[in-house]
Amino acid sequence: MHAPSEQGYIQQLSIDCVIFGYRHKQLHVLVPKLNFRGNFWALPSGFIYQHEGIDQAARRILEERTGIKDIYLEQFRVFGDAPRTNRAFLERLIQLNEDKLGKPGDQQFNRKEFDWFTQRFVSIGYYALVDINTVIPRKIDLDESIDWYPVKELPTMIMDHNEMVAQALETLRLNLDQKLIAFNLLPETFTMKEVQELYEAIYDKPFARNNFQKKILDMNVLERLEKKFTGAANKAPYLYRFRKQTAQ
Amino acid sequence: MHAPSEQGYIQQLSIDCVIFGYRHKQLHVLVPKLNFRGNFWALPSGFIYQHEGIDQAARRILEERTGIKDIYLEQFRVFGDAPRTNRAFLERLIQLNEDKLGKPGDQQFNRKEFDWFTQRFVSIGYYALVDINTVIPRKIDLDESIDWYPVKELPTMIMDHNEMVAQALETLRLNLDQKLIAFNLLPETFTMKEVQELYEAIYDKPFARNNFQKKILDMNVLERLEKKFTGAANKAPYLYRFRKQTAQ
Repeated sequence: MHAPSEQGYIQQLSIDCVIFGYRHKQLHVLVPKLNFRGNFWALPSGFIYQHEGIDQAARRILEERTGIKDIYLEQFRVFGDAPRTNRAFLERLIQLNEDKLGKPGDQQFNRKEFDWFTQRFVSIGYYALVDINTVIPRKIDLDESIDWYPVKELPTMIMDHNEMVAQALETLRLNLDQKLIAFNLLPETFTMKEVQELYEAIYDKPFARNNFQKKILDMNVLERLEKKFTGAANKAPYLYRFRKQTAQ
Repeated sequence: MHAPSEQGYIQQLSIDCVIFGYRHKQLHVLVPKLNFRGNFWALPSGFIYQHEGIDQAARRILEERTGIKDIYLEQFRVFGDAPRTNRAFLERLIQLNEDKLGKPGDQQFNRKEFDWFTQRFVSIGYYALVDINTVIPRKIDLDESIDWYPVKELPTMIMDHNEMVAQALETLRLNLDQKLIAFNLLPETFTMKEVQELYEAIYDKPFARNNFQKKILDMNVLERLEKKFTGAANKAPYLYRFRKQTAQ
């Protein structure tokens, strides 16, 4: 196995992805658990090949790691404090998994790879919005499992990954109205009540129904579907559909 | 002179700064013109030392390049397309300035430095908001001049720097209300009319006076100053001051 430095990646630059989904009236984040002893959870992450753009790299990482493609994806912040490195986390992981990895000094242990991974990394944070019902998360060899966690019940992740989720959520709240991106979290059709519940989950506060409905309809981006004529009295709420230009 | 690669910078990662100021009812950007033949304008840019955080690097670059410190500064986007490099611009600059720089192959020409500068760079864009009256821009050796240009009359800059300004402006518009940052562009005290003119300059559209005034006052961040008693009839408009928590 070659050290990642030999695989043509840009040095000291990484990408971390916060993938938001929505179900049971709660915003969720997709988080893999690493296939090592020690309970390590980490956001889906990766590096950038010399030949690929950063957005392209983010899409590749997301797809490799989760099986998800063609989704709404957006940079939200760069994490670049001077002492930002994997070292502490990797040292602990190695200590707890010596049988599998060897220990520093052993022939089995890949010093070069360890040094590469423990450099300082500046990381570009991306967030993604997916319709949770249409994706089947896929774990890779590195993962023991990959699951959706409610944003309020996230496991403690490595490094600054919990802070990354907090910042991603802040950006999502900031962008929600201007960019009309919330609808990426919903299925094809939805009721007005479902839209309101989604907004309440994202902002973590209730909205008054009438004001909210007026605000959303005033955006003029929803199409109301005709109710199917069934002959019976129809008390079902109207269904709406987002008039997509493109997701991004 | 050593190639920048030997100065302890992170490889292939740069910072570009869009510095906004406001005067004559127009939003301006501070742009240095390079001290070479060929009319090269470029945003204030630089690299990140291994020992410094990216925000810290952005502040250092801003101060070195412009003399400005302690200002509102924020990341807005990473520019990282695969083919993003300085090469075309530097080749042209060298061709036009051979007397000064030598040409590739000459002993005088620093091949190593040229190669370093012409790598692919991923660049983190920062925008800054300054009170244009309190700063005296400072040029460095590399600059022939440094001037404020109205955002609608920018010179054609190198690489994707004009696109960077457009993206910075888009982010500024998006963040203006939620982050209450516009006041960083104004002097200590100002009239409501001046606030409105500033917003109109940023959004490039007029606002209805009553609605605008209500919206701004509803933000509940302005302090109205008492008019000084002069004895004479006082028709001067009220002055306001931003109740700063901190600029950032």
